[in-house]
Amino acid sequence: MEAWFEEYIVRVEEELAYFFDTYGEYVSKFPFVIKDLLAKIRRYSLAGGKRIRPILTILAYYGYGGKGDKIKQISIVPEILHNYYIIHDDIIDQDHIRRGIPTVHAMYEHEEDSKHHALSMAICAGDFTSHMVNHIIINSEFSNKIKLEVLKLIDITGFRTIIGQVLDVCPEESASWVEEVHTLKTAHYTISNPLKLGAILAGVKKSELKKIERYSMFMGKAFQLQDDILGLFGDEESIGKPIGSDIQQGKMTLLVVKALELASKKDVKFLRACLGKHNLSKKDLIKVRGIITDSGALQYSTNLIDLLLTKSLVELEKLNLNEPQKEQLRKISRFIVGRAH
Amino acid sequence: MEAWFEEYIVRVEEELAYFFDTYGEYVSKFPFVIKDLLAKIRRYSLAGGKRIRPILTILAYYGYGGKGDKIKQISIVPEILHNYYIIHDDIIDQDHIRRGIPTVHAMYEHEEDSKHHALSMAICAGDFTSHMVNHIIINSEFSNKIKLEVLKLIDITGFRTIIGQVLDVCPEESASWVEEVHTLKTAHYTISNPLKLGAILAGVKKSELKKIERYSMFMGKAFQLQDDILGLFGDEESIGKPIGSDIQQGKMTLLVVKALELASKKDVKFLRACLGKHNLSKKDLIKVRGIITDSGALQYSTNLIDLLLTKSLVELEKLNLNEPQKEQLRKISRFIVGRAH
Repeated sequence: MEAWFEEYIVRVEEELAYFFDTYGEYVSKFPFVIKDLLAKIRRYSLAGGKRIRPILTILAYYGYGGKGDKIKQISIVPEILHNYYIIHDDIIDQDHIRRGIPTVHAMYEHEEDSKHHALSMAICAGDFTSHMVNHIIINSEFSNKIKLEVLKLIDITGFRTIIGQVLDVCPEESASWVEEVHTLKTAHYTISNPLKLGAILAGVKKSELKKIERYSMFMGKAFQLQDDILGLFGDEESIGKPIGSDIQQGKMTLLVVKALELASKKDVKFLRACLGKHNLSKKDLIKVRGIITDSGALQYSTNLIDLLLTKSLVELEKLNLNEPQKEQLRKISRFIVGRAH
Repeated sequence: MEAWFEEYIVRVEEELAYFFDTYGEYVSKFPFVIKDLLAKIRRYSLAGGKRIRPILTILAYYGYGGKGDKIKQISIVPEILHNYYIIHDDIIDQDHIRRGIPTVHAMYEHEEDSKHHALSMAICAGDFTSHMVNHIIINSEFSNKIKLEVLKLIDITGFRTIIGQVLDVCPEESASWVEEVHTLKTAHYTISNPLKLGAILAGVKKSELKKIERYSMFMGKAFQLQDDILGLFGDEESIGKPIGSDIQQGKMTLLVVKALELASKKDVKFLRACLGKHNLSKKDLIKVRGIITDSGALQYSTNLIDLLLTKSLVELEKLNLNEPQKEQLRKISRFIVGRAH
């Protein structure tokens, strides 16, 4: 990506670090276990990531005419919200690595013998992080009216994300189920929520929020499809987590659903045997990749990504965003579907 | 308790049922797994309990001159908040029974083979319930200013509760540690938060909130000490959960900390062996009770409860609450420390 994008990332990471520093003061009088918990959440939050969510918030705020610096602290809200969800998501998915470092429950597992204690601490870590979201919004410099609009947005986003998460935990072998999960769990909270947040803070009208949502639904689904491809065909170091973990966890990604629909009986049998197989070998993984490629499932997904990108760019043009933010959003849209991490 | 208290309970349970009915409409278009999750949260929430938290909110609201019916729906906020915490707390404590019915993760365990799936669904259930808290506040009929004051209260309460929970998960064998947990995890969120909520909704001044907090700290600690006594010496059917589970979980209650300090070397050795012992026998439990009684730890706790009650009643008189609510609060205070469930 270009320099302006890197500048956004630096800015967001500075805000995150500043937030954890100031929040740290609140816990300074408590015993070590509390300070250590916050230090783990901080380490996890600052370990990396695309920072796409706060960048979208800042971009929408200035693109819709927002002024001044008061966006800075509140712009990290979608990132903190994301951390809350993924701390719990890591427990649910039994993921031990994210962003190239141990997940929160894995940090505790490394230190102690008791898996249950590690789990308990990670549940608390997620709950703690969830409370930070409200804390930042309530203590921001915006009017009460705007704060409540923001809280309403987060309420609806949270509702959808958790429903999406439950559907993801109870997967069905259906493309429409997968699309529903992508809409609820990715499109709303990764694209629509951050953009709407910036727009609300800048004071836009409700009709504009609807337009943002239309753009975001296409973009969000494309983002998730690309994420699923990277999770299977990407580079472990770039994406910061083990390749093929979706297969090991038996996740119903569109790649898998389509391969089960399109592949030969023999390949389907092999693929089914790999889904949820905890000791998936490198050889298994290569064969799974082959099945997903040869069946046409990969091509189906990349075609769909192209279609979604095209549709999202049409919707993007309808937004009343100022340039240069509109141009930045075009570039981010293309980056999201073309990225390697 | 008297008839007016029973009337409060009926009223709170009606509001809870009404809330879950209306909230159910939001999920009606989603697949069965979502409706089933909400049904489980509803069943768990309506299974019983003292409803002390919403009763304190209603009592404070009218006692501080609040008018009309708009308190009704928002009065269940401390109960929903409580359900969020205890759904996660049940996972952490590995409790399978509460309020005489299975806990949320246990409901899923009864239906399925996968313990991990049950755990995942219960994490989601807690997160879902946590979002309901904000939802009710934001959509209540109070002014934006009051809504934000309420959200600030919930923010601070949540912060303290989670810190208390972490300290409870990482117990130390010290009376001051136990007291800190009781202050953070019980006094604030069981007594102070509900009373302050009602008071804020009625429009009281900050100085009154400080007075409420002073009363609540004494009352909350007494409540928790009584809870710990019931957990070991109470009647299983009345309290709705297995007797001695604190011992099985190795919890550092004041009873245990004091017994470890005061009992003979032999008894201390036996008690230590029972702490965290999952297959604790009926015989073990009877002996543990004997040690806690004979060492003077039980007497120490009951004396402390009496002292805390006396102090709380002194603080109660300083509150600017109207009668008859003040008289009701006196009765509730005495009930809390004298209750059998």
